[in-house]
Amino acid sequence: MAEIAELTAAVREFSQERDWEQFHDPKSLVLALVGEVGELAELFQWVPAAEAAERFSAPERRARAAEEMADVLVYLVRLADVLGVDLGAAARAKLADSHRRFPAAAHHGVAPHKA
Amino acid sequence: MAEIAELTAAVREFSQERDWEQFHDPKSLVLALVGEVGELAELFQWVPAAEAAERFSAPERRARAAEEMADVLVYLVRLADVLGVDLGAAARAKLADSHRRFPAAAHHGVAPHKA
Amino acid sequence: MAEIAELTAAVREFSQERDWEQFHDPKSLVLALVGEVGELAELFQWVPAAEAAERFSAPERRARAAEEMADVLVYLVRLADVLGVDLGAAARAKLADSHRRFPAAAHHGVAPHKA
Amino acid sequence: MAEIAELTAAVREFSQERDWEQFHDPKSLVLALVGEVGELAELFQWVPAAEAAERFSAPERRARAAEEMADVLVYLVRLADVLGVDLGAAARAKLADSHRRFPAAAHHGVAPHKA
Repeated sequence: MAEIAELTAAVREFSQERDWEQFHDPKSLVLALVGEVGELAELFQWVPAAEAAERFSAPERRARAAEEMADVLVYLVRLADVLGVDLGAAARAKLADSHRRFPAAAHHGVAPHKA
Repeated sequence: MAEIAELTAAVREFSQERDWEQFHDPKSLVLALVGEVGELAELFQWVPAAEAAERFSAPERRARAAEEMADVLVYLVRLADVLGVDLGAAARAKLADSHRRFPAAAHHGVAPHKA
Repeated sequence: MAEIAELTAAVREFSQERDWEQFHDPKSLVLALVGEVGELAELFQWVPAAEAAERFSAPERRARAAEEMADVLVYLVRLADVLGVDLGAAARAKLADSHRRFPAAAHHGVAPHKA
Repeated sequence: MAEIAELTAAVREFSQERDWEQFHDPKSLVLALVGEVGELAELFQWVPAAEAAERFSAPERRARAAEEMADVLVYLVRLADVLGVDLGAAARAKLADSHRRFPAAAHHGVAPHKA
């Protein structure tokens, strides 16, 4: 079984064992995801942008960031499971789409614009 | 290669081909992640909570949600790559930790409390 | 002086007294705002949607929500100050614009659609 | 009437005229707030941190940021109204609390730590 599907199954089983599926409607899971993204943002908020990568190369800080990113991923796969979405396939499709929308030559060195 | 590592490599290559690595410092990637989570939230905001799962079982809506979740995952793996974090391993470690912190018997049917 | 301008001045003075202005570039402030919104989201995540308003009418819970909302507002006025934005005027302009875009008769009982 | 209370009353009236109060349960409003914060984040995501303040001093960009910040404020006052929270008072109480928790001398030039 593919890695994301395995993780999805493990999170589902964890939820079922605790009878927590009742809490996992889509809106609640999006809010939980937002909470974890907020914790991730807090780690970086006051770090100077130019120093962030280096400062987070220290083992303790990297581990803290890894933990918050893991929380985000766990809720993301749980949401995908509840919605019947194949997250791995969706990510590959999105990347293929980005290849079409942003030909490398035309977008070299230019950040995609958000209007 | 494991699925998340494959996706990570594909997103990295995509970024390199466009010379977009210059934009991918950690704070910028967290902001990009926030933007995608915001788009995901907007899909659900006015849908009654009790009807969300059913409404998003319609193919078009499910595809829209899948797309936004894919965007979140793409930026998450990109951030993990920039920080040198093994995202798959971090998620498995987090889940193992949750098994320890929330024994099934003691937490059956009770949502974990956020103080 | 209007209330939002007063609050803006108080937050600016607080920042100046601590020499924290150096941390308050726009991207850092948006990340701080995201962190507080995440804490607000966590308060509500596992509360059944239909019971949320009632449960948060309890004084302690209402006070917790008030605190997180206050944090969001404080960073929002700080960001507006750094960007030279008149937040009160912007909100009034936005509301006037919403009156034009969503005539009451045409949008009665229909949630605005996010495509 | 104070400015935030006036804005709150205006947003409430706007919601009532459109019969949109039915959509404004707390969780939905937090998701709407998240959506607007996401749009705000997208404006800044690829702008180099050191140039963000200057780039957003251009009238068009400042107006775009003002608009997104206004959206955040509108949903924030709406949420406060639904929860019976006096947002202006909460912000002043929070600032008073921050004065106590962060004496200027002890915290001069040091960003508050998020563990």
